[in-house]
Amino acid sequence: MLNTPYLLFLGDAPDQLAAKVAQGIKDWRPEYATGQLRLPGCKADLKLPELSVAEAVDKGAKTLVVGAANRGGVISPAWVATLKQAVEAGMDVASGLHNRLTDLPELVAAAEAAGRRLVDVRVPQDSYPIADGKRRTGKRCLAVGTDCSVGKMYTALAMERAMQERGMKASFRATGQTGILITGSGVPLDAVVADFMAGAVEWLTPDNDADHWDLIEGQGSLFHPSFSGVTMALIHGGQPDALVLCHEPTRSHMRGLPHYGLPTLEALRDLALETARIVNPDVVVTGVSVNTAALADDEANAVLEEIEKRLGLPTVDPFRHGAGRLVEPLAG
Amino acid sequence: MLNTPYLLFLGDAPDQLAAKVAQGIKDWRPEYATGQLRLPGCKADLKLPELSVAEAVDKGAKTLVVGAANRGGVISPAWVATLKQAVEAGMDVASGLHNRLTDLPELVAAAEAAGRRLVDVRVPQDSYPIADGKRRTGKRCLAVGTDCSVGKMYTALAMERAMQERGMKASFRATGQTGILITGSGVPLDAVVADFMAGAVEWLTPDNDADHWDLIEGQGSLFHPSFSGVTMALIHGGQPDALVLCHEPTRSHMRGLPHYGLPTLEALRDLALETARIVNPDVVVTGVSVNTAALADDEANAVLEEIEKRLGLPTVDPFRHGAGRLVEPLAG
Repeated sequence: MLNTPYLLFLGDAPDQLAAKVAQGIKDWRPEYATGQLRLPGCKADLKLPELSVAEAVDKGAKTLVVGAANRGGVISPAWVATLKQAVEAGMDVASGLHNRLTDLPELVAAAEAAGRRLVDVRVPQDSYPIADGKRRTGKRCLAVGTDCSVGKMYTALAMERAMQERGMKASFRATGQTGILITGSGVPLDAVVADFMAGAVEWLTPDNDADHWDLIEGQGSLFHPSFSGVTMALIHGGQPDALVLCHEPTRSHMRGLPHYGLPTLEALRDLALETARIVNPDVVVTGVSVNTAALADDEANAVLEEIEKRLGLPTVDPFRHGAGRLVEPLAG
Repeated sequence: MLNTPYLLFLGDAPDQLAAKVAQGIKDWRPEYATGQLRLPGCKADLKLPELSVAEAVDKGAKTLVVGAANRGGVISPAWVATLKQAVEAGMDVASGLHNRLTDLPELVAAAEAAGRRLVDVRVPQDSYPIADGKRRTGKRCLAVGTDCSVGKMYTALAMERAMQERGMKASFRATGQTGILITGSGVPLDAVVADFMAGAVEWLTPDNDADHWDLIEGQGSLFHPSFSGVTMALIHGGQPDALVLCHEPTRSHMRGLPHYGLPTLEALRDLALETARIVNPDVVVTGVSVNTAALADDEANAVLEEIEKRLGLPTVDPFRHGAGRLVEPLAG
């Protein structure tokens, strides 16, 4: 979907957190991160070479990726001149922000004149089939969560890396805008029309070598009333052989829904297995990934031990300890 | 969404079945069916007054509804002259077919000139919120199926009628194009963008009187891998107090998926309850609706008795026997 490598555009990001998309690219696909371009006032820094548009093109960059958000999560008018420069110099421009590159007339005209693409990764770029539910060759692992935003993307990316380090065949499959920008392709599942959700996931995870694993980025939660339909389409379109349960132990209610408590990991395990068995009777839960960012080391270790004992499954925080124990069950 | 009453346009429908949308309107909303307009060669007949466009306008018709499909399920070029006449005479035009009224330039120009609306009911006509999962006042009943196309719309419409005949407050809530044309409003759920599915269902079934029931048209099936995400959004957005299980007993595999068998009614009951309890802990299954159209009377009765005994729930074919026994448990 996106041409690589990238020039990472940080704009006038107000702090380091605002550049988390660019940071994700640097962390997970360093080979795509040719350099960074920052505007005056930018408070984020990826410690990458500072490149002008022209220098980035010289170094082979094919796409300028908007890797930061301003306070509104939208493309800032102050950025447009640089984005125009990029297309005029021969790069595509990609963004995952809420407003669209293709809604900026000046930029659209420049891109058309230069024959370059503007890619809004929140907008589906392909047309997807209706799912047919047929068993596909190769293996698939899906991250499912007790809630939204509990580390499903991070878990799948960390598992991909751990598997590749072990010489296993593994591909992260992005289903949200950040994952798409990081890896250069994927499906923005929450923007797909209902009838085609499961088909989009089938399209994203096609037939493959018998020993190849897709690590599918999860979305939402079966227990989150706003987005559970998207999660169900992932489970039925993804046809997982393995499920990894993702959890954030300090959260007191479902994200954005103060009136909903979190399900237990046991409830998630049971409902995810029950629904996944409809498309793959052999599916198993292989591990638990816990986001312990809010806990001190000893608290984190205590939580992980308690869950591991309770569920009888390898339980790690892949950020603290790596994803090695999560991928061991997939090596068989 | 649609202005009523309607002129039912049957075009050159090749047989009676092709006019099933118009038949549904006549059956379920006879007060909307001002008359029919048929072109030469039309093989369908609703036994309604034959009206020209001008006569329909005189009788108060506000919308010409395309109530028939030709063999391709699309708007036929042979129909366009009549549709143009309708807008020129002051009617809106509505269609649920696959191609769009708004993609016919000649018709669009005529509608604009006349200030009339072209409504493609497969296309969402409203913008929907993201679901917030808050408990709403009033009661809701959702039809869920072992498969697609097992009679969920018919069941909900029959229950609405039976409840209104008993003096209960009840509103059918359409979630597909046929239901929308029949009742004049609703949400074309399979065309809604994933993130907004559950919110669209909340929007469709807002706060209401404590003794008012929404009868929500079901879509897909939790067990149908192509569309289960849509069903999940209906369950979580619909927040049902009551579930009615819908089934077609002669079907040998899931619709369109020869490699998938149907779930048992028990499996449907359990999974629908488990998922619905996430948003409404008090939800109950109140009955079973069986489409016995393919069976002779004695076979049908045997099937209904067997299921009623097995599940311990009122079990009827509402087409054969009415929906009275399905609505009794909702009478409180």
